[in-house]
Amino acid sequence: MITVRNRCELLAALNVPAAEATESVAFVPTMGALHDGHLSLVRHAVETGSLVVTSIFVNPLQFGPNEDLAAYPRTEASDAALLKTAGCDILYLPTVDDVYPTGFATNVTASAELSACLCGATRDAGHFDGVTTVVARLFGLVQPNSAWFGEKDWQQLQVIRQMASDIFPRIEIRPCATVRDSDGLALSSRNARLSDTDRKAAVAIPHSLGFARQLARAGAQPTEIERAAKSALGEAGFSVDYLEIRDSLTLELLTHLNEETLATARVFVAARIGQTRLIDNSALIGPNPQLEEALAPQTSMASTARAAVTG
Amino acid sequence: MITVRNRCELLAALNVPAAEATESVAFVPTMGALHDGHLSLVRHAVETGSLVVTSIFVNPLQFGPNEDLAAYPRTEASDAALLKTAGCDILYLPTVDDVYPTGFATNVTASAELSACLCGATRDAGHFDGVTTVVARLFGLVQPNSAWFGEKDWQQLQVIRQMASDIFPRIEIRPCATVRDSDGLALSSRNARLSDTDRKAAVAIPHSLGFARQLARAGAQPTEIERAAKSALGEAGFSVDYLEIRDSLTLELLTHLNEETLATARVFVAARIGQTRLIDNSALIGPNPQLEEALAPQTSMASTARAAVTG
Repeated sequence: MITVRNRCELLAALNVPAAEATESVAFVPTMGALHDGHLSLVRHAVETGSLVVTSIFVNPLQFGPNEDLAAYPRTEASDAALLKTAGCDILYLPTVDDVYPTGFATNVTASAELSACLCGATRDAGHFDGVTTVVARLFGLVQPNSAWFGEKDWQQLQVIRQMASDIFPRIEIRPCATVRDSDGLALSSRNARLSDTDRKAAVAIPHSLGFARQLARAGAQPTEIERAAKSALGEAGFSVDYLEIRDSLTLELLTHLNEETLATARVFVAARIGQTRLIDNSALIGPNPQLEEALAPQTSMASTARAAVTG
Repeated sequence: MITVRNRCELLAALNVPAAEATESVAFVPTMGALHDGHLSLVRHAVETGSLVVTSIFVNPLQFGPNEDLAAYPRTEASDAALLKTAGCDILYLPTVDDVYPTGFATNVTASAELSACLCGATRDAGHFDGVTTVVARLFGLVQPNSAWFGEKDWQQLQVIRQMASDIFPRIEIRPCATVRDSDGLALSSRNARLSDTDRKAAVAIPHSLGFARQLARAGAQPTEIERAAKSALGEAGFSVDYLEIRDSLTLELLTHLNEETLATARVFVAARIGQTRLIDNSALIGPNPQLEEALAPQTSMASTARAAVTG
């Protein structure tokens, strides 16, 4: 694996004959503090036989003034070791000035419809425009054939999918399933900041998704599902930013579930415990093996819930 | 020359082995109504040995509600014949829906500093954001190695140069000198709409640039130059949107000319006659052979002007 720290080195690494001879370039943009979720993106990209480029860049544009930019975990040395083992070919580790040199003046604005709700409504303004701008900047530098993103950040995935469809139609966006701990908590760089107590309580997040899925199967409507799942999160000590049922692709709020809307319905959650904000999501029906396997022992909660709603 | 009318055909044309074997792709985005200025871009691109792609697309995003979108000249058949003769390989002639399909939701915003002045201040709001968005869209589709633009639209060139530097750093922006009629008028698709009388009067536009250059050489300062050149345009029947002296690269207004500021000073003009708005620009000192050659017989006007200012 080659590590490059500026655009010039990056372009040189991409333009050596060995790299050019590779049929395609696969790109995994990250903010570092890598966990098995990121590494699964890299492994999937490696499996395609592409030259795999991973970037680690904590993008200031996507953090608001009240957010955790300074506190965002940075674990560069261990990240590099993990990427090497996973089969990454080029690691791009730029400074802020390399990504946004003096005079940088362009904003790539996200779809207003996709970015106004969920994290767009609860995080500081401009979050998703910061995401689309940095991803566009990195896409233009790397010019990959494919780019890999985790489904844990589902809204971000849809926002990037639209931006890429509009501005980088030749880059294929490849989503990968959320990787979870054995208790069901989605892997996240922010999990490292949870106290032991909060980490135990955090299982309430995937449980709220499983709970919503059980209620939906039992015929409950969004208002009931959202109220019950929020209440369960509150009891576990979480302050809920949102728990909503929306269409998977358009992110439109669903107020009524029927056969048609259920097919693409998705439950989204963001909640805070201590200083940490966690997000997660799941299809409301249909298989979610990672989530179901982790929550399997927890059937009693779902049964109680079902009884409470339908009873 | 292959003519393609949608993205799908464009990508197929770019991906045939013959095209892929070409070392590089050169791109000339246009709004059609082609004249020798456009064709000089194509000829320069052909000289590089690249596969040359020209697009003809009258971009609605860059026209305001009070502007001439509907009246913009469309001469598709003769454009195609001219491009074929000039050596273009692929002509992309899309519909509005092919460039902006349903769901298109991204804006690529131009540098605020470069786009607020000159045409950004006098045309309808959003003009340059419309330009950067369509150029980014086309850059992402074509993925050229170089893209060719005329210096007549100098501000547009700087805005695109910044956008490309930010989002498409691997695309080389290649400016080409303004092509002029024998009397000095810069070629423009809008010239076709001038009446015979207005076409004759339009020579006042390049004369105002030549006049400004003469005054600058005689030691005049921006206020004097702007007043004198505006007055000459007014006498020729023009309503002046702007006539300003600014830095060539930053487009900052220059209020004082000295050895340092003169080196990069540029005079910019936009003025209306009848229903037609014409623009032009020139370096304030240094060679501008195309302009000087055309204006050479016109020395008496410059001498008179110099006497008026310095006397």
